Amino acid sequence: MKISHLVVKTIAAVCLLLASVSAFSSAAPSLVLSEKDITALQGAGGGLLGQSLAQNKRVADMALGEGIIVPWPEDAGGGYTHEQHKRNYKAMYAAGLQYQLSGDKAYSDYVVEMLIAYAEMYPKLGLHPEKKEQTPGKLFWQSLNEAVWLVYTVQAYDFIAETLSEGQNQSILNDLLYPVADYLSIGQPQTFDKIHNHGTWAVAAVGMVGYATNREDYVAQALTGLNRSGESGFYQQLDKLFSPDGYYTEGPYYQRYALLPFVWFAKAIDTNEPDENIFGYRDGILLKAIRTTIELSYNGLFIPINDAIKDKGIKTEELVQALAIAYDITSDRSLSDVARQQERVSLSAGGVALSNIIARDQVIPYPYQSKVYSDGADGDQGGLALMRSGDNETGSLVVAKNTSQGMGHGHFDRLGWQFYDNGQEVVTDYGAARYLNVEAKYGGHYLRENDTWAKQTVAHNAVVVDQASQFGADLMLANARPAEQVAFESSKVADISIGRLNTAYQGVMLTRVLALVKPELANPFVIDVVTIESDKVHQYDLPFHFSGQIIDHNLTHYKAFDTWKVMGESSGYQHMLLRSEGKSAVSNNRLTWLLDDRFYSYTFGHSVQAEVSGKTLFFQLGANDPDHNLRREQGLLRRLKSTNAVFYSVVEPHGEYNGTHEYVRDSSSKVKNLEFQASKLNSKLIVDMGEFGKYILIMTTKSSGSGPYQATVVRDINE
Amino acid sequence: MKISHLVVKTIAAVCLLLASVSAFSSAAPSLVLSEKDITALQGAGGGLLGQSLAQNKRVADMALGEGIIVPWPEDAGGGYTHEQHKRNYKAMYAAGLQYQLSGDKAYSDYVVEMLIAYAEMYPKLGLHPEKKEQTPGKLFWQSLNEAVWLVYTVQAYDFIAETLSEGQNQSILNDLLYPVADYLSIGQPQTFDKIHNHGTWAVAAVGMVGYATNREDYVAQALTGLNRSGESGFYQQLDKLFSPDGYYTEGPYYQRYALLPFVWFAKAIDTNEPDENIFGYRDGILLKAIRTTIELSYNGLFIPINDAIKDKGIKTEELVQALAIAYDITSDRSLSDVARQQERVSLSAGGVALSNIIARDQVIPYPYQSKVYSDGADGDQGGLALMRSGDNETGSLVVAKNTSQGMGHGHFDRLGWQFYDNGQEVVTDYGAARYLNVEAKYGGHYLRENDTWAKQTVAHNAVVVDQASQFGADLMLANARPAEQVAFESSKVADISIGRLNTAYQGVMLTRVLALVKPELANPFVIDVVTIESDKVHQYDLPFHFSGQIIDHNLTHYKAFDTWKVMGESSGYQHMLLRSEGKSAVSNNRLTWLLDDRFYSYTFGHSVQAEVSGKTLFFQLGANDPDHNLRREQGLLRRLKSTNAVFYSVVEPHGEYNGTHEYVRDSSSKVKNLEFQASKLNSKLIVDMGEFGKYILIMTTKSSGSGPYQATVVRDINE
Repeated sequence: MKISHLVVKTIAAVCLLLASVSAFSSAAPSLVLSEKDITALQGAGGGLLGQSLAQNKRVADMALGEGIIVPWPEDAGGGYTHEQHKRNYKAMYAAGLQYQLSGDKAYSDYVVEMLIAYAEMYPKLGLHPEKKEQTPGKLFWQSLNEAVWLVYTVQAYDFIAETLSEGQNQSILNDLLYPVADYLSIGQPQTFDKIHNHGTWAVAAVGMVGYATNREDYVAQALTGLNRSGESGFYQQLDKLFSPDGYYTEGPYYQRYALLPFVWFAKAIDTNEPDENIFGYRDGILLKAIRTTIELSYNGLFIPINDAIKDKGIKTEELVQALAIAYDITSDRSLSDVARQQERVSLSAGGVALSNIIARDQVIPYPYQSKVYSDGADGDQGGLALMRSGDNETGSLVVAKNTSQGMGHGHFDRLGWQFYDNGQEVVTDYGAARYLNVEAKYGGHYLRENDTWAKQTVAHNAVVVDQASQFGADLMLANARPAEQVAFESSKVADISIGRLNTAYQGVMLTRVLALVKPELANPFVIDVVTIESDKVHQYDLPFHFSGQIIDHNLTHYKAFDTWKVMGESSGYQHMLLRSEGKSAVSNNRLTWLLDDRFYSYTFGHSVQAEVSGKTLFFQLGANDPDHNLRREQGLLRRLKSTNAVFYSVVEPHGEYNGTHEYVRDSSSKVKNLEFQASKLNSKLIVDMGEFGKYILIMTTKSSGSGPYQATVVRDINE
Repeated sequence: MKISHLVVKTIAAVCLLLASVSAFSSAAPSLVLSEKDITALQGAGGGLLGQSLAQNKRVADMALGEGIIVPWPEDAGGGYTHEQHKRNYKAMYAAGLQYQLSGDKAYSDYVVEMLIAYAEMYPKLGLHPEKKEQTPGKLFWQSLNEAVWLVYTVQAYDFIAETLSEGQNQSILNDLLYPVADYLSIGQPQTFDKIHNHGTWAVAAVGMVGYATNREDYVAQALTGLNRSGESGFYQQLDKLFSPDGYYTEGPYYQRYALLPFVWFAKAIDTNEPDENIFGYRDGILLKAIRTTIELSYNGLFIPINDAIKDKGIKTEELVQALAIAYDITSDRSLSDVARQQERVSLSAGGVALSNIIARDQVIPYPYQSKVYSDGADGDQGGLALMRSGDNETGSLVVAKNTSQGMGHGHFDRLGWQFYDNGQEVVTDYGAARYLNVEAKYGGHYLRENDTWAKQTVAHNAVVVDQASQFGADLMLANARPAEQVAFESSKVADISIGRLNTAYQGVMLTRVLALVKPELANPFVIDVVTIESDKVHQYDLPFHFSGQIIDHNLTHYKAFDTWKVMGESSGYQHMLLRSEGKSAVSNNRLTWLLDDRFYSYTFGHSVQAEVSGKTLFFQLGANDPDHNLRREQGLLRRLKSTNAVFYSVVEPHGEYNGTHEYVRDSSSKVKNLEFQASKLNSKLIVDMGEFGKYILIMTTKSSGSGPYQATVVRDINE
């Protein structure tokens, strides 16, 4: 550790007295923000940064207008005292920063007064009356909120510390900051030493108090655990909570939530102990985590795998903060492409720089790439494969979910996939069944339908065996058995991913080959081949959830029902209504639909052991949904009964619908014929697009079996 | 008529020879575009205008690249020869204009060659092999296309006329322009003299040939009919096809389609005979028609009453052209607000001016107002009432349809209504069942479901009596009986419309009071009171079609069905599936839903003669729709059995859902109580919004009966 923070402050204060005070210059803070940030902010204005500055002043001024309100803790999450204490830490942060920027003592006085009020109350508090069983707090019902409170509050303290009298400072330290830090560390070791993002908030809070008040013991505990063994604490969290590619196992929705304490505390470490090179730790794991969060998005929204609310995206506060810190560390100009989409910047040196790049029209594109994001601390728990063509706002993106379960927020959808194109989600994932903060929807919590529908296998584009979800929807079983990312390759012709899952259903081995093929003269299209191996006969359902208006299909023996019946009793089927059904031919079945201004065709067929005729069922959500909790989404379901079986298909964007100028072009699929040729070691899917070429997916299997382990796409040049 | 056009051209050509030719200066055209336009365009560039110029050059260059392709007419609409002849007139227009702008003879040569090719073919043509029975063409299957072809082609001729040799000119006149004009006039008097927008195209085409070639006889026929009596022709069309407010009875979707020949021909008249003051005719009816087309829109899209495809809006080519002409005539700067939304301008002096206003940031808002647009040539066929608060892109708009039937494209939805708010269609109208130009959807024509669903009363927010559509869905009956716009008032407190329809159902009198109330402290909200008078007991269904996700409702005796059954056999009910139902209490029934980032609540009750309990049914579209032609929309239906009855309700936007910043505010309705007080002459609906005030709708009825004829909203100041 370098010279203590308080000493630096004292020196700065002395210098201030000695200097001729022509412009305001307070002692700079030394946590997430430091002198460099304050200097940059004081010289800045205009653009996105100007808006953020004005917004901070608005928040601070409003807080001053409202005065000091520190109520005795009474309410659970969402209640008055809970929300007031949340408002308070944000208000203190904004006012403290405003003091740093302007030198106006009205702002620092507000923070001082608030801190004193808390210091007077805190020692008298017992556990919160509405305390959560496992992790109670004192100011809040759960200690997670208390840790977040302290992360903000200690920064506010740091902003205004120079203005405190010795008596005030001692009172704030001894009656507030130290007691809260103690409570969050030795007071609840099970959370503090836990390798979980709740632990990260506690560690960050305690560590930042350490830096701000020169308590080396707090810093040491934060970095290496309560017993300082290194078996827990921040470094362990960095080692265990992200895969080597910076992927967080719950998926991007929770990754962005977990990100803030990581990057804030790392920045505070970097300010105080630059020699630690914390951003270089584990091959730059934190910067990888930030980049991965950015990259697991399409057109501004996060890919909604696992429990995820679908309107959440890169504009989120956590990623705004993280982006500026990443820029500050890397000076990577392509990060400005993300800031442009965020439409705001954080108040920091990085934020100033990003705002300037945008204002000067010097944005360069962020390099979104086709890539596998490995899952698991050691990268051996499968992975999330992204295949891309074109840019991230209008181009094509295939997501293959060959990961681990992702813990309690995970869905039973391994080997499922999604497709994005033309700025839209085309082949869809339901996300979570939850209306965050909407009181009438079960208080904004996860809904019953999150378990009964959203988590179930049939709610995803993944094979369902015998109408049951993967692992019998048993979380313990599922957690123990990751999927396998068998292969991945990216080339000019095609990106290809192979995923395997042999443990979800007894005696059934599932392999999925997904390819994003990039023809020269037509839109990129997707090839999907699901290989199922089993000795016994099962019912295989392959759902295909899509967004848009059906244009037509070519199914024979087709019946549309005037009465829509529920399709099952459990595993998600109890929410599905059957609207129509037809026979699935062996090949070249086709559905065409329209989404926004583009057409899509799904051309599909199957290969089975015996000659069993398949069915295609059109369904809609809405049964067993008395509270109208589900969105009324649609899909089709391909059903086969067989031992071994292969579902193959092509999803193909084409043409244009233009209502304003009244034209339509290429409303028909370019796929002339889809032919599957099975052999022991080399299966082929031949996609004949006539004048647009013939593309052949060649899949190689080992003689010992268990699905393709290698695949390639070639363009047939004999045409 | 002024000095003949050809003489002017000759003089201009002579001048050109005499002048020192420092810049290109051809003889200017004299139809829709004239010298003023060409001069303005030659001096312009940048902004929207620059884009339009570049686009015209692209079209012209592409045409030159493709060469002259004039196929023998064979195909019906959509077929190859049909589309090629359409491409040809647009190509000739673009190339001719490009010649005017650049003086490059490559462009004029292209037009000349094309015209000669047509002149060689046209005299040999008989009627089109795929001719439409009533109105056959020669180049096209119907003469409407032929008239459109001539309107463009004669302008292209006018652009390049100076480059023609005498021989070429004679050939083009005698073998092409005159024969086509003759065919469209004396060749088919039933269309030419018809008071219908198809007639307008023919009249415009023939009249423009008259001006371009100095044929006064053509001009006279175009203006006053074939026999020059004034009983038909352009002036009659101006007298009969628009109401005094410039409303076209089929509604805005067809109004914008009908607009182009009107404004183009008027502009050509103005160029050649400015003393006619055609734009001042009938108190400026054409400018009113343009303004009305603009005003019958919300957030860029036309209000989809009657047969209307919902993606059609103000960006349409016809309105881009009309807007520039309107600006040229009026210099009304607020028209630039519309051009801004159109994101392009036409190539004309008006287009140049609009582009400049936008580039200079001098746009002022277009003054959208609350207003009744009377229907019928004399304005006595009811009207369309628009009530507004806030701007036209994010504010509130109530539309009450108290019009005539609107001819063959009309829907059986008189006294229906719609509500727009926050940029969205909230209380919805299905529009037309049609996928324009989508081959797989019945060749892009109106679908069977347009008759069986979209036109039916239950597909709208209008009362259905005994499960039958208005007038028994008989068009002749419906055409003969307009609705009545009984009253309309606009004030700071509220806008109010009263509509009446006593002829749609035998012995049943319907009156609807709609008010847009504008509280000071809350969002504008809608009051809706439907009064039904009948001696006999009927079943009354009031459908409420809305867009968004249901949040909750307070219906008792509520049942959600796992099997969704069809709700009827005809009149649209055969497409509706019943998903759930509950009991309607006498008052304060409530549905709350979420659309985009705003909540909406529908609070409703009823008053009936006897104590009959009402029901509320939730439905979704999709039954009897084997081809997936219908969108899967939702609604609820309030059902009563009674003699006299009143349905009353409030629709209220409130609060905000913010996913990015994770907050929700005001997700509950502000309406504390809804109370209906009926009396013989003064009924009241009291809307109690607690701290946000109490609003009372007072409706006055004559002792002779037949529903309220006067209404007002007062704020209760005793609170």
